[in-house]
Amino acid sequence: MGERIWTAGLAVIGDEILSGRTQDKNIAQIATWLNVQGIRLAEVRVVPDVQERIVEAVNALRERYDYCFTTGGIGPTHDDITVDAIAVALGVGVVIHPEARAVLERYYETRGGITDARLRMARVPEGAELIPNRMSGAPGIRVGNLFILAGVPYITAGMLDALTGTLEGGRPVLSRTIGSWAAESEIADMLAATERAHEGVAIGSYPFFRDGRIGANFVVRATEQGVLDACAEDLIAGLAAKGLEAVDGGI
Amino acid sequence: MGERIWTAGLAVIGDEILSGRTQDKNIAQIATWLNVQGIRLAEVRVVPDVQERIVEAVNALRERYDYCFTTGGIGPTHDDITVDAIAVALGVGVVIHPEARAVLERYYETRGGITDARLRMARVPEGAELIPNRMSGAPGIRVGNLFILAGVPYITAGMLDALTGTLEGGRPVLSRTIGSWAAESEIADMLAATERAHEGVAIGSYPFFRDGRIGANFVVRATEQGVLDACAEDLIAGLAAKGLEAVDGGI
Repeated sequence: MGERIWTAGLAVIGDEILSGRTQDKNIAQIATWLNVQGIRLAEVRVVPDVQERIVEAVNALRERYDYCFTTGGIGPTHDDITVDAIAVALGVGVVIHPEARAVLERYYETRGGITDARLRMARVPEGAELIPNRMSGAPGIRVGNLFILAGVPYITAGMLDALTGTLEGGRPVLSRTIGSWAAESEIADMLAATERAHEGVAIGSYPFFRDGRIGANFVVRATEQGVLDACAEDLIAGLAAKGLEAVDGGI
Repeated sequence: MGERIWTAGLAVIGDEILSGRTQDKNIAQIATWLNVQGIRLAEVRVVPDVQERIVEAVNALRERYDYCFTTGGIGPTHDDITVDAIAVALGVGVVIHPEARAVLERYYETRGGITDARLRMARVPEGAELIPNRMSGAPGIRVGNLFILAGVPYITAGMLDALTGTLEGGRPVLSRTIGSWAAESEIADMLAATERAHEGVAIGSYPFFRDGRIGANFVVRATEQGVLDACAEDLIAGLAAKGLEAVDGGI
């Protein structure tokens, strides 16, 4: 009821996603993590390793949403241009972060020592803080409402873990999934009526084809448990009225 | 050499992607398919099932790139609003396409008959043509440079198959992957120099951690086979000069 909704945008940076070479896993990973923080992922843009395209996406997302996350492009090679592009987007310079330098020096002590390429990973936009990364030497970066994370999913996961509980958010979105071996088109009207009857609830319908049969999972979402359950029970009753079995928890 | 590059944008429409419930598979699938058509995926936006957000994304992408694709939101339920949103984006009405109606009537003849909900899937923006869908009744939709595809990946695949060879494109991007059990940061300078030495080539560097060891795959991309191979050979020689074995085809 007029509760503040916290939102985030995500810029996935990398030619490898746009070429189809790499299947992105960070959108789902970050979306799920944000839900638990009480923040909703409201938009994603996937852009290539091209400075002006990164600048445009990051500026659009950080202005529009409470938080802006980026993944990708923070390694030591020539195609890692995220930090420079974000500094341009913010209108600040790029500096070597002394703590990041120390972390990298320690990490590479037993791995051949620090080099210019490795030191690239200590570069941050001016005014930035670090996000710890227990997986590899290079830290993530926070500047204001902007969070610059790694592209490799298990490293991204470690950075998210370090951020858990540190971001202000609202109530997490709760969900309950009801499955049925029904054709979506048979129950479309009942579904729409059930959603309309319950304020503050959204029902998504996700059809599938499995073992030669068609079915659908209906995902009911709300921020209040009571509201969620009332709608889910009505949906189960609506399916029963059509002679359809409802599988609580989904199929 | 001044050759025309054809580009596409993709709008992935659906709350289920932004909530993290569903792992998107269409970005990689469409990117890969576009490459073969000689078209480059230049940008992706993931937006919720909200009309104004779909309108904004579709208008931005169709104006900026040669082609615009959308996935998701074309089923029979209340949350399927893609057709209406795109009609708004184009400033046209929504009509029942007679051929789509006939296809659906045929498809549902042995499946309980046509209903209002099922007929929703025959609605198209005025002036649209159909994209055949052998997998289920509902067709995809083409309006000018805009292609409206299903969200369920195997149905999307069938629609892409029907479009194969029908879109004007340029030369496909060729690629060759060279892997090495090297730390990215050890070879960053050599990599950048190799890319600079070969016009028309881009090298992407994709680190990984596997079986307790770190390595990277280097993806060399170009539209000319000779240019591609010359750069890949230089890269292999560059790795050898550092005592590193190159695995042609990647690790």
